[in-house]
Amino acid sequence: MTKQQLFEQIQKKQSFLCVGLDSDIEKIPEHLLDSDDPLYTFNKDIIDATASYCVAYKPNLAFYESTGVKGWLAFEKTVAYIRQRYPQHLIIADAKRGDIGNTSEMYARSFFNEMKVGAVTVAPYMGEDSVKPFLIYPDRWVILLALTSNKGSADFQMTTDEQGERLFEKVLRISREWASDEQLMYVVGATQGKLFEDVRKIVPDHFLLVPGVGAQGGSLEEVCRYGMNRQCGLLVNSSRGVIYASNDEDYAKAAGEEAHKLQLEMKEMLGKYLL
Amino acid sequence: MTKQQLFEQIQKKQSFLCVGLDSDIEKIPEHLLDSDDPLYTFNKDIIDATASYCVAYKPNLAFYESTGVKGWLAFEKTVAYIRQRYPQHLIIADAKRGDIGNTSEMYARSFFNEMKVGAVTVAPYMGEDSVKPFLIYPDRWVILLALTSNKGSADFQMTTDEQGERLFEKVLRISREWASDEQLMYVVGATQGKLFEDVRKIVPDHFLLVPGVGAQGGSLEEVCRYGMNRQCGLLVNSSRGVIYASNDEDYAKAAGEEAHKLQLEMKEMLGKYLL
Repeated sequence: MTKQQLFEQIQKKQSFLCVGLDSDIEKIPEHLLDSDDPLYTFNKDIIDATASYCVAYKPNLAFYESTGVKGWLAFEKTVAYIRQRYPQHLIIADAKRGDIGNTSEMYARSFFNEMKVGAVTVAPYMGEDSVKPFLIYPDRWVILLALTSNKGSADFQMTTDEQGERLFEKVLRISREWASDEQLMYVVGATQGKLFEDVRKIVPDHFLLVPGVGAQGGSLEEVCRYGMNRQCGLLVNSSRGVIYASNDEDYAKAAGEEAHKLQLEMKEMLGKYLL
Repeated sequence: MTKQQLFEQIQKKQSFLCVGLDSDIEKIPEHLLDSDDPLYTFNKDIIDATASYCVAYKPNLAFYESTGVKGWLAFEKTVAYIRQRYPQHLIIADAKRGDIGNTSEMYARSFFNEMKVGAVTVAPYMGEDSVKPFLIYPDRWVILLALTSNKGSADFQMTTDEQGERLFEKVLRISREWASDEQLMYVVGATQGKLFEDVRKIVPDHFLLVPGVGAQGGSLEEVCRYGMNRQCGLLVNSSRGVIYASNDEDYAKAAGEEAHKLQLEMKEMLGKYLL
């Protein structure tokens, strides 16, 4: 999916919502546990209920790995389902991988060739040769961690170097040379508020994947005020707030309603802040 | 496995070798491809041939994930095999995970409860709350990336802050407060040579997992000269150099010989540098 195609989907749906499929076997409605593949059944229903209100899905690998082989099967089936039924939706494998070159090559092969997702999140700590192997797939996206939504983001990402540059800024500045904004996005947490201005000084045109609205407390309005650009440039993720909107038999309907609510807010934001 | 138990194994075997199971379906001997589970068959043979010469195994998750569900099965079976046949060997899942708290919790559950490995590698970029969930398992190890073996380690890990501290030093200094040296190890690449001295100034007593000897060009002698402490404090990994020592039917025998060669070098190093 190209940047232009992504923007077209955003315009068409008046939404830049990414639904995070953090599907936890211990949190999905109990009556699903009787089904053959509870995580997949849950995902399928959530996807059908939310597809009209979002432009991307972000399955979080941790939640699938935690149940071993069964979880991987559920993940693969979920990806296949989205690709077949909703081919316009970007699928982001939230994996936060990153390793030495030959290993990152394997991860890239795994996500892009085997699982056929459209994007993967990657950690920058190990530098250029750990990220580059993900960038040889021309029509796929690498989403690099820059400034995350959690409290621990202050531990290292905010470290200021001798030139007065913070680590997340250095990550943005250096990595933007590795590929264009047609292949590279960045993770910037919604909880970072006004820091989106500093991010936009370095990467004005890139898409940002923004977790942290909802359960983590970030403000959608702030993200849009400081982060939106001419092609929207934002994919705002909500996971728990959408997929666990109800824990009962109406879970899919409730997720759909929650996604719709977010879509309406996003429509308003697009009207207000799209440059 | 406690630190003392690990040191006892090292003394007993006169080896601090970790064999990296970077088992690549495209690189294992061709005749194995006919077997039911080629990766597992390969691993089993390699493990049997090398177990007397090493104290740890480090399956690299990327290589298993790259073949999807089949690969996960091979990984799980490999871990089960080591646990059953060689319970004294530390099993390190080389996964380089790290995410916001609730997600790291899932990864920790996955590796420690589901797959029952003894250690997992974790990336520090997201800070304390991304690492802490791995530390609630009292008898398991977290191995945090500090100074990696690859060229890209210079991109961010060597960044010097306003106080003159490099990022890898800050990672060591801050993270050593999160848990004791009974639970935390660090990845320091063999290619970093004299920098082991600087690492040891901050974490004199911790075990270090050292990749990069062999295919990546690091020197065992240098690692030991600057990195060994009173309990050895080193797990030196070799992956490709051991497991692909031969690509023919004698691959297991060749791997065993290569591991033995390394063990003999390590014995010499222990004689020379053990404090």
